[in-house]
Amino acid sequence: MNEKIRFSTVISNFGNQSDRFISSGYKDNKSLEEMFHDASKISDLSGLELVGTWHINEENLGLVKELKNKYGFKIPIIVIDTFSQKRWGKGSFTSGDPEIRKQAIAEVKKYMDICPELDCNMIDIWPGQDGYDYSFQADFIRDWEYMIEGISECADHRNDIKIGIEYKPKEPRTHCYVSSIGKTLNLINKIGKDNVGVVLDVGHALYAYENMAESAALCSLFGDKLFHLHLNDNYRYWDDDMMVGSVHIIEYLELIYWLKRIKYNGWFSLDIFPYREDGIGSARESINWIKEMMKAINSIENTEIEKVIKEGNAIKSSELLRKMVFK
Amino acid sequence: MNEKIRFSTVISNFGNQSDRFISSGYKDNKSLEEMFHDASKISDLSGLELVGTWHINEENLGLVKELKNKYGFKIPIIVIDTFSQKRWGKGSFTSGDPEIRKQAIAEVKKYMDICPELDCNMIDIWPGQDGYDYSFQADFIRDWEYMIEGISECADHRNDIKIGIEYKPKEPRTHCYVSSIGKTLNLINKIGKDNVGVVLDVGHALYAYENMAESAALCSLFGDKLFHLHLNDNYRYWDDDMMVGSVHIIEYLELIYWLKRIKYNGWFSLDIFPYREDGIGSARESINWIKEMMKAINSIENTEIEKVIKEGNAIKSSELLRKMVFK
Amino acid sequence: MNEKIRFSTVISNFGNQSDRFISSGYKDNKSLEEMFHDASKISDLSGLELVGTWHINEENLGLVKELKNKYGFKIPIIVIDTFSQKRWGKGSFTSGDPEIRKQAIAEVKKYMDICPELDCNMIDIWPGQDGYDYSFQADFIRDWEYMIEGISECADHRNDIKIGIEYKPKEPRTHCYVSSIGKTLNLINKIGKDNVGVVLDVGHALYAYENMAESAALCSLFGDKLFHLHLNDNYRYWDDDMMVGSVHIIEYLELIYWLKRIKYNGWFSLDIFPYREDGIGSARESINWIKEMMKAINSIENTEIEKVIKEGNAIKSSELLRKMVFK
Amino acid sequence: MNEKIRFSTVISNFGNQSDRFISSGYKDNKSLEEMFHDASKISDLSGLELVGTWHINEENLGLVKELKNKYGFKIPIIVIDTFSQKRWGKGSFTSGDPEIRKQAIAEVKKYMDICPELDCNMIDIWPGQDGYDYSFQADFIRDWEYMIEGISECADHRNDIKIGIEYKPKEPRTHCYVSSIGKTLNLINKIGKDNVGVVLDVGHALYAYENMAESAALCSLFGDKLFHLHLNDNYRYWDDDMMVGSVHIIEYLELIYWLKRIKYNGWFSLDIFPYREDGIGSARESINWIKEMMKAINSIENTEIEKVIKEGNAIKSSELLRKMVFK
Repeated sequence: MNEKIRFSTVISNFGNQSDRFISSGYKDNKSLEEMFHDASKISDLSGLELVGTWHINEENLGLVKELKNKYGFKIPIIVIDTFSQKRWGKGSFTSGDPEIRKQAIAEVKKYMDICPELDCNMIDIWPGQDGYDYSFQADFIRDWEYMIEGISECADHRNDIKIGIEYKPKEPRTHCYVSSIGKTLNLINKIGKDNVGVVLDVGHALYAYENMAESAALCSLFGDKLFHLHLNDNYRYWDDDMMVGSVHIIEYLELIYWLKRIKYNGWFSLDIFPYREDGIGSARESINWIKEMMKAINSIENTEIEKVIKEGNAIKSSELLRKMVFK
Repeated sequence: MNEKIRFSTVISNFGNQSDRFISSGYKDNKSLEEMFHDASKISDLSGLELVGTWHINEENLGLVKELKNKYGFKIPIIVIDTFSQKRWGKGSFTSGDPEIRKQAIAEVKKYMDICPELDCNMIDIWPGQDGYDYSFQADFIRDWEYMIEGISECADHRNDIKIGIEYKPKEPRTHCYVSSIGKTLNLINKIGKDNVGVVLDVGHALYAYENMAESAALCSLFGDKLFHLHLNDNYRYWDDDMMVGSVHIIEYLELIYWLKRIKYNGWFSLDIFPYREDGIGSARESINWIKEMMKAINSIENTEIEKVIKEGNAIKSSELLRKMVFK
Repeated sequence: MNEKIRFSTVISNFGNQSDRFISSGYKDNKSLEEMFHDASKISDLSGLELVGTWHINEENLGLVKELKNKYGFKIPIIVIDTFSQKRWGKGSFTSGDPEIRKQAIAEVKKYMDICPELDCNMIDIWPGQDGYDYSFQADFIRDWEYMIEGISECADHRNDIKIGIEYKPKEPRTHCYVSSIGKTLNLINKIGKDNVGVVLDVGHALYAYENMAESAALCSLFGDKLFHLHLNDNYRYWDDDMMVGSVHIIEYLELIYWLKRIKYNGWFSLDIFPYREDGIGSARESINWIKEMMKAINSIENTEIEKVIKEGNAIKSSELLRKMVFK
Repeated sequence: MNEKIRFSTVISNFGNQSDRFISSGYKDNKSLEEMFHDASKISDLSGLELVGTWHINEENLGLVKELKNKYGFKIPIIVIDTFSQKRWGKGSFTSGDPEIRKQAIAEVKKYMDICPELDCNMIDIWPGQDGYDYSFQADFIRDWEYMIEGISECADHRNDIKIGIEYKPKEPRTHCYVSSIGKTLNLINKIGKDNVGVVLDVGHALYAYENMAESAALCSLFGDKLFHLHLNDNYRYWDDDMMVGSVHIIEYLELIYWLKRIKYNGWFSLDIFPYREDGIGSARESINWIKEMMKAINSIENTEIEKVIKEGNAIKSSELLRKMVFK
């Protein structure tokens, strides 16, 4: 947790966000270059995540390289789009249609092969459409087997590219299969490949009633499996994708401490939906909060924090936190 | 609860549903006539709710009348669009911009004046964008005053048209002002007009941790204020807008009993988002479940049900329910 | 929000807390004098809330007066016990048994008459057992009528003693009648007496998915009805009754700002269950957090805060909060 | 799912239930013999679960055997008490105090050795006190290592006795370590012993936002690990421990189908807290609901159900369910 901290964001942060009521979005659309340009105004930002099909594909690879170089960004991870097209509506890796399952795997492989072109070594698989909405609609065992097989095949495709699996309890399905840190670690263990790990989205953990610090620690305990972070905040019932610093200061501090302790050295990457807010401002504010919280953690000796944790006395924990936050 | 039961649905049930990940929708778009045509295939359906700007406006009034007559539907209620255009993104009745507040009120009045043309006597105000997302973003007192003033002005516009206020805890804001049955009844009481009452959306009540039967009863206790129903189901954490019959059978039975008891004689209207499902099938199934549940309630003498309720013994309640459901 | 801020706590904070698994409690029992003595060690504490039957009754009134004087505490409020005895198990004010209803009202009146003896001018009615657990177990309309009648009769008993109604969504019933700020304000409005208002328990508001700042503001809007505060924290799903400062810093700051704005001049009173924690430490820490948060709010000019709120721009709200919290 | 179905209940169902407000309980205490006697009045009941220290210990083993034989019950499982004594208040297997950790393991071994005396071959470990309440209070990695070590040692003690691990998201801690099906399967996999599996408490799964049918299926997929069931119901936010049949009929039907499909042949055991209800009645009603739901599932050919599930069409799922429930 030092000068080497690298900040990034999903680039759509600078675009236009829609929901089911305003499907054309709350703001105006922006071109890819406009989004790179906006990003360049945030001095702390050195990485930009791209979503396949939205921001990068075979056609525009040249443009992406050009913008990346022009604006001087790294691409920490490419998010595979297995969720935003009609064909994925009833599942991707676990679709009942073998053709769709094949397409999902092919989509992953395609972007794994694009990665090196962008000096990127990781892709994000978020199987958001893989799950179910109603009872008696899903064959859980068959579908979990498809999931394991599908991601295994991707992992075998090339081991120089890491695969981060992003879990989420629900949305867009009422029940997503890969819904919690526990299920994700089971899946990863079953796949059993070194290049498969976890993308921990803090908001997803929060509304799965997880303490994200514990979830990060478990990734470490079960094999150095924390590959990447998605940072945002919410009110614990839904993936509100708010700015960091909006609600959960205390649990964020605990997360930051544990990231330091497990020697996480990946990116601190934002995944926010600033529907009604300025894109630049919302990313900048989020980063400023994270930096202040890192400073707060670093203001106390590790040995002192460890001593408090070891004691397990909540009153001392409260004193420690109060000193961190308000001093 | 007899032969006079009238079923309707929001007509968008037959259209194409989108969410923030697939903003072009999971299915194909349909024309207004196609939606009327689909609706006409459901023999139990005699009403169609229209949403202002989406399905009805000053331009297409002639077409709407024609389709209404051709397919033989009534229009139980028109839903005012104060939520689906960019201009409403930061509020309608409670916007900080006086021009927007005026436009919201004008929008309501315009549709109140259209109502008689369609033999319709009720509009639905759902102030979905009126609320806030973040702390220190809203002046609660000022905004609640705007809300009271705005809807009062609408109610004064003409008293032959009823105004049903539809509450919802959250979405699209993380916090909506008119979020619960209690707040809604306060608002209605403060407005103090006979033509202002409640649209009870069962799903909204469920994820506000209300028992919708109690919410309906409170509308009656505080002045015969249950004007209209929106029926759907969810898993209690979000407005999943699922088919009736998906999850909450027991609480639905209790609701149906109380609607009978408070002599509700309005419409039984669906408000479902069948993202991945056939529109006709999802409406038909929902109505079939409601009819079965009505039959279940009607299979037991009122006096017997009242006796069980009066006793307050949960074991007898369970026996009663078991008899209703499985016999 | 100045030197006149008065802190108190429910005195059971210093006692022994039990739950359904360790019904004898996690710590050792303490005598009333021991609890007064513990309280006296916290210099910021000048008030102690007493629970009827637990800490005060007709028999021990002399002792209470003596301890109160010896240790120099005020009694801001007496909490009426209509929840902790077998007779209340199926309701107090709304019991189906008229004898129980009479007893509940008598219990309130008795303690209203004791109040002046202790220079206390307020009682707290928390109708925790009034509600239901199962469907088809409750006659909502009858019970709400009992509730209105019962508390009205209490309010009429003497108008020099204020009655604060404390709402809570659930526990010990799965559904409590007086469950939200909205329902509580309806109840108070229906009763229509000047001496009836709200006890806002922050934790109860949080797990009703309320923003407690808005709830406080509504008490003001609907008639200066915020009589008393119960302060604690939780994880939004249950009444965890944790120390202040544990989770919701941001929303607490907003609450403190609004208390200042609506000119709340009552007590800042803790209602915590430190099951496994030292009673003195947990109260002291909670008060220290509140004082730090008050300082944070007072560090910014009112006009600046109002300007940010008026603008409704979440990025400015975030900047404001960051400035408050970290410097 | 046939004539061999065996029903049991935790015997405390017939006793007196307390909560934190009425710690002496809502009813009267009963002797062990009275509870056996009550249980004997339910003809479908053939098993009784005992909780260590509450109902069975080294002193009263003779009495338990005598009652078991006199009333003709089997003991499907003994629940180890690592949660209801002051010494466990800050954890059992993961306590910071090595002496307490030793005691927890010793407690398990002691009851494993008692099992054969009662023709019982399974114990239930519910590590309810193992977790944390506040941030910066727990060393997640150390504690999870203790948990793995501790239960491993128990499993090694004797392999003729099965150990079922019962997970629960929270209560009595705000965060329990073994909180979800995913984490539990990780723990079991890490321990890697044949005699360690899952006790699936349906209510715990429901308020972890799991679909309990999927959770049961995952136990099967990850190695025939569904050892035992605890049946009850709740409103999805808390462990209300209500009677079966109170809320979640649809999801219960799906669970029962999947138990049949994965060939679960263990007990159907109740774990209910009938605070205000008659013990005999609440167990009898729960069993009656389960039997009706089994009948409903058995009324449809397996092949028909499988066909619907395979198709994944929610409208057909709804038709199927409607036919099951109301015919």
